[in-house]
Amino acid sequence: MAEKTVSLNEPILSRNERLAAELRQRFAEHKVYVINVLSSPGSGKTSTILATNERLRDRYRAAVIEGDIASDVDAVTMKEAGIPAVQINTGGLCHLEGNMIKQAVDALDQGVGLDAIDVIFIENVGNLVCPVDFDLGENLSIMILSVPEGDDKPVKYPGIFQHAGAVLLNKVDVAPAFDFDLDAYNAVLNELNPRAPRFSVSATRGQGMDEWCAWLSEQIEAARA
Amino acid sequence: MAEKTVSLNEPILSRNERLAAELRQRFAEHKVYVINVLSSPGSGKTSTILATNERLRDRYRAAVIEGDIASDVDAVTMKEAGIPAVQINTGGLCHLEGNMIKQAVDALDQGVGLDAIDVIFIENVGNLVCPVDFDLGENLSIMILSVPEGDDKPVKYPGIFQHAGAVLLNKVDVAPAFDFDLDAYNAVLNELNPRAPRFSVSATRGQGMDEWCAWLSEQIEAARA
Repeated sequence: MAEKTVSLNEPILSRNERLAAELRQRFAEHKVYVINVLSSPGSGKTSTILATNERLRDRYRAAVIEGDIASDVDAVTMKEAGIPAVQINTGGLCHLEGNMIKQAVDALDQGVGLDAIDVIFIENVGNLVCPVDFDLGENLSIMILSVPEGDDKPVKYPGIFQHAGAVLLNKVDVAPAFDFDLDAYNAVLNELNPRAPRFSVSATRGQGMDEWCAWLSEQIEAARA
Repeated sequence: MAEKTVSLNEPILSRNERLAAELRQRFAEHKVYVINVLSSPGSGKTSTILATNERLRDRYRAAVIEGDIASDVDAVTMKEAGIPAVQINTGGLCHLEGNMIKQAVDALDQGVGLDAIDVIFIENVGNLVCPVDFDLGENLSIMILSVPEGDDKPVKYPGIFQHAGAVLLNKVDVAPAFDFDLDAYNAVLNELNPRAPRFSVSATRGQGMDEWCAWLSEQIEAARA
């Protein structure tokens, strides 16, 4: 059954690869560093983007592309925080695709202008399965797992953890209330994706955010050099 | 883009409807009550099934069909708890389909036998988008949201909350550590799905589980009558 779905999607995927390559070139021309933010619903994508921007705003001007099945609550939050934001509603689709990002980037370009943007955060649809197959032309994909979700998620959703360029463990401030086996979690990630750096953070309380932001700044500078 | 995906999936969906009708008839003939358990990854599907079975095991013999992208950790957990379990690995697919359930039910029938089972819990893939479109022949779909995911999930994933026959808010024991606006959450559900009963529970600590299990028992008895 999985095979059937994959074969049906192949034309979409190959078209997406072409669009992603075009986006990647466009981002490079305008020196925009793009971060594809992945997690389950409610793991803290929005709060991590806000907390990261708070620490990097003096160095980099950020914009956000919000992907949701429905609603614009996250885009409203971003705009209230002074960050240019474009909302994409997927109308039921469980991931973002290159053609949606192209439209959102066009909107940003017509708004603040791409040359006035250093970093774009793409907040993908909350999903650990669908977004993995869709390259959005990003420089970096990050996977956010939150402590309340449990330490077994890398075993159960290996694809997205393998795909990530960095893995953030969020909500560590509430770790005492949950049975999260950090050793078991790390052991699985050592197998799945030993090279991606891991950060333990609390986006809302600030723990670990300086370390994450220092590493991210290095990646942005390396891409610009 | 959403239109394209929907049209590609239509043959799969119409085939699924036929399979779901066959499954529903088969469940009715063997007096098996089937519950499709939906949530994000890590909201507590496994622990809710275990805690529910613990309270109902004297009245009903349960079995579990576990749907995962990869791994068999949940089926192992179920078997350790003495519950017959069949694991389905979807190989990347973000939902379960009727043909997978048919295979799993065949396996249960060849194992303990369907007549020795009163209730089947189907633990769907952790996902708030894909499973909504796939009828599995179940009597009841339940949606589990956990407090750490945030009160805005019904706004952002309306489809699955509209679809549910009951909504469980899990991990209420850790509510003091999170800013979960219960009034906002209830207001949105009052719009989306006023008829589905709501239960506030802690599957691991037991809070609210008796109320949920009493209601579930009534549904099972009504289906048998």
